[in-house]
Amino acid sequence: MQDVATLVAQAREGRPRAVARLISLVEGASGQLREVMAALAPLAGRAYVVGLTGSPGVGKSTSTSALVTAYRRTGKRVGVLAVDPSSPFSGGALLGDRVRMSEHASDPGVYIRSMATRGHLGGLAWAAPQAIRVLDAAGCDVVLVETVGVGQSEVEIASQADTSVVLLAPGMGDGIQAAKAGILEIGDVYVVNKADRDGADATVRELNHMLGLGESRAPDDWRPPIVKTVAARQEGVEEVVEALEKHRAWMEERGVLAGRRLARAAKEIETIAVTALRERIGDLHGDRRVSALAERVVSGELDPYGAADELVAGVTRH
Amino acid sequence: MQDVATLVAQAREGRPRAVARLISLVEGASGQLREVMAALAPLAGRAYVVGLTGSPGVGKSTSTSALVTAYRRTGKRVGVLAVDPSSPFSGGALLGDRVRMSEHASDPGVYIRSMATRGHLGGLAWAAPQAIRVLDAAGCDVVLVETVGVGQSEVEIASQADTSVVLLAPGMGDGIQAAKAGILEIGDVYVVNKADRDGADATVRELNHMLGLGESRAPDDWRPPIVKTVAARQEGVEEVVEALEKHRAWMEERGVLAGRRLARAAKEIETIAVTALRERIGDLHGDRRVSALAERVVSGELDPYGAADELVAGVTRH
Repeated sequence: MQDVATLVAQAREGRPRAVARLISLVEGASGQLREVMAALAPLAGRAYVVGLTGSPGVGKSTSTSALVTAYRRTGKRVGVLAVDPSSPFSGGALLGDRVRMSEHASDPGVYIRSMATRGHLGGLAWAAPQAIRVLDAAGCDVVLVETVGVGQSEVEIASQADTSVVLLAPGMGDGIQAAKAGILEIGDVYVVNKADRDGADATVRELNHMLGLGESRAPDDWRPPIVKTVAARQEGVEEVVEALEKHRAWMEERGVLAGRRLARAAKEIETIAVTALRERIGDLHGDRRVSALAERVVSGELDPYGAADELVAGVTRH
Repeated sequence: MQDVATLVAQAREGRPRAVARLISLVEGASGQLREVMAALAPLAGRAYVVGLTGSPGVGKSTSTSALVTAYRRTGKRVGVLAVDPSSPFSGGALLGDRVRMSEHASDPGVYIRSMATRGHLGGLAWAAPQAIRVLDAAGCDVVLVETVGVGQSEVEIASQADTSVVLLAPGMGDGIQAAKAGILEIGDVYVVNKADRDGADATVRELNHMLGLGESRAPDDWRPPIVKTVAARQEGVEEVVEALEKHRAWMEERGVLAGRRLARAAKEIETIAVTALRERIGDLHGDRRVSALAERVVSGELDPYGAADELVAGVTRH
């Protein structure tokens, strides 16, 4: 086992195996997790974190890869975290991973990592920020966080990004319908990919309508731009980067970026604290106290809430 | 608003609206939740709780309805809780509900309730035991808990049942493959429904093989029986009830039932306690303490684990 200081130094030098090892250490809740996090703290906080979400079929992997290409042209170091909240499989290569790998695998300025939640509830919220922190501390200027799949977890990932990109594609009426469920509330930048297909303009119009971009807003409000791309041919991708940079500048001018990062840190601290408290309760499992309370609940002497009160009183201050 | 004691008395008399109201009160985490749970405690613990799981298409709703019919013939009062972990929609009628409703709606000895988790992580684990408790306290002899969909949440539901029934159907090779993922570990009784279709015997054989029922076991071990049914024609359903009663008797003779219920109560208490602790942390959100910690994390002075330690120290005993 290598020591953490050495791994961090190697990661800073751009050695991908050290980055991979550090992510494994924070992802797996290893005994060295705390040591790693403490070592990373002074180094992190520099990367710009971009979340990419969208229904299956919109070309998320291709778009992510195209964004990597665009950022690399400007000399930025890029980290990619591909998160699959629905997969019970840890580590290993996702399909999208392999596709991207073929293009960027030999580039020392790019780190790519896939992450699954291994069926743990709350596993995503817990593990993703720490992997982002590793990529950040390793010197990535930009970290792209791509989610596979849809739903609640997308919103969760968006809450961990500085800027959220929502991807759509023409001819996916269902896509926009699904998007209604919440995705339209999280986008800072919208991308209509596969814009060479029929219906791209209609999708842009519909999106414009749904976002209420025609309506009057406070002059200082951010108006999410809609960018058309053909990611597979790198078309429109520079415009996406421009839109991201505009959003970043807009946030920085108004202190919004600092605010988002503070809120994110607060949420992360709370998640870790809740997990720690849960473990403390869990340590009592099998304890005579919990067994005795369970017996009183089964016998009907006590209800589970009353029992929980006694348990909580055992670990908390009065 | 009716008072809780009146509602509980009415539920005991068999008034379905009072049962429905009580479930709404415990499901919605209303202000009266604790009062309801305290009132139910001495009345609950009598019902036999049967979980039904299986992939979509195996005929779960039909099987549940057929089991209700079989139990009603023996004069038992039956509660049905249809849980849809994947649905973000609360209350309301599930499709299966309406199908069943048409047959049992006018029977005063049957309560049917559908429940969704409304996108809350852990919502199912939290709300289902309490709804079961209401049906139990209302005088149901048997509570059937049917899950819609597959996966982790099925295993969760199974952990809340006295006996778990796993349903399969012929010609669903995928079904058995999916089942491998965990469903085969949770079944106390297996039912091959739609047994009039081609391949029913092959499914039974395959299941037998996968369960290793041919292998030698300790003489006192429970050997999960495999029952063939055509639930739509009520065929084989009495045999399912017999298998359930056998399993129940086997558990009672060995103290297994009491053990399962104790473990369930312990888990329920822990879930409630963790939720309470989470709320206590949540109350600090927006608190100057969390903001100050978040600032130190963003600036790199502190890592999120160190920050969480300080937060936990604030609410727990040393």
